[in-house]
Amino acid sequence: MSENKVPTILSLETCAQSRLFTIERVQLRFSNGIEREYERMKNHGHGAVMVVPYLNDETLLLIEEYACGTHRYELGFPKGLIDKGETPEQAANRELKEEIGYGAKKLTALKSLAMAPTYFASNMHIFIAQDLYQERLEGDEPEELTVVEWAASDVSGLLANNRFTDGRCVASLLMAERFFAEKE
Amino acid sequence: MSENKVPTILSLETCAQSRLFTIERVQLRFSNGIEREYERMKNHGHGAVMVVPYLNDETLLLIEEYACGTHRYELGFPKGLIDKGETPEQAANRELKEEIGYGAKKLTALKSLAMAPTYFASNMHIFIAQDLYQERLEGDEPEELTVVEWAASDVSGLLANNRFTDGRCVASLLMAERFFAEKE
Repeated sequence: MSENKVPTILSLETCAQSRLFTIERVQLRFSNGIEREYERMKNHGHGAVMVVPYLNDETLLLIEEYACGTHRYELGFPKGLIDKGETPEQAANRELKEEIGYGAKKLTALKSLAMAPTYFASNMHIFIAQDLYQERLEGDEPEELTVVEWAASDVSGLLANNRFTDGRCVASLLMAERFFAEKE
Repeated sequence: MSENKVPTILSLETCAQSRLFTIERVQLRFSNGIEREYERMKNHGHGAVMVVPYLNDETLLLIEEYACGTHRYELGFPKGLIDKGETPEQAANRELKEEIGYGAKKLTALKSLAMAPTYFASNMHIFIAQDLYQERLEGDEPEELTVVEWAASDVSGLLANNRFTDGRCVASLLMAERFFAEKE
């Protein structure tokens, strides 16, 4: 990176708040003297995890889950917030047990992903899960999630699916594909 | 997809609002009868674009841009909102001219990506740009963006960069890599 000097925060205040979201108004002065007002989402919590679970070398597991933002069922990987006191690995294994009814003996950390750094500081740790064993934990989902098996080799088919659209799911799938290709 | 019945929206109201963001509170009844309160971000605008620009077969172009959410400079691809009346292709070409000083004679549409469907309906159209020509348009950035050349073959190096973290950037990079690998 070049040596850009981060803008000075002239003021910072909460300008809107709901149960889940806190929006901050930020007055900034850039290093060239230009001042601008930005808005961003205040970061709560301890980050999140997403897990790409392999039932075996040939089979990926996906879930179908209702997404309120798009008001439809979306296809994606198990994910969730890290609870206080949990490591990302513990959260990944808990979410797997809650959402697909498996734990994983082997978790491999891939890259951590941001959602949209312009507005959010949130950070999501991505894992590959292998060596699964059956174990179900009660989650807080309002309904049971549908687990979908997908041929691990059919990455193109999954990319073409118009219910598989979350940028972090697409990134996770392709990082996992790359991870296994590099091992071969 | 299986035939999950989308929950019934019992009520929908704005519960917080700022200049940029509108947060909605949604009361839902799932098909199993369970009722839950959700929050989501109201969708404004006409979607967004992100462009993976190839200066030539060997060189990708990236920008360094201040991100208020993380309060640091991030490395990523040119992106921006689609203006009213613009096609995604027109928006992609305009953003390229504003952010890196090039137009593109060739734009290839990849998949459209969601940010986080649980909370947002926003949709981002991803393009590969090739056959670039110099043309600069004045953007609304508070400071000139730093353009960074990156060896197109060094995908692993870019993935390892801890300033290249936006899930949609990672997805776009790997979809572009896949696109060219399939053509070979």
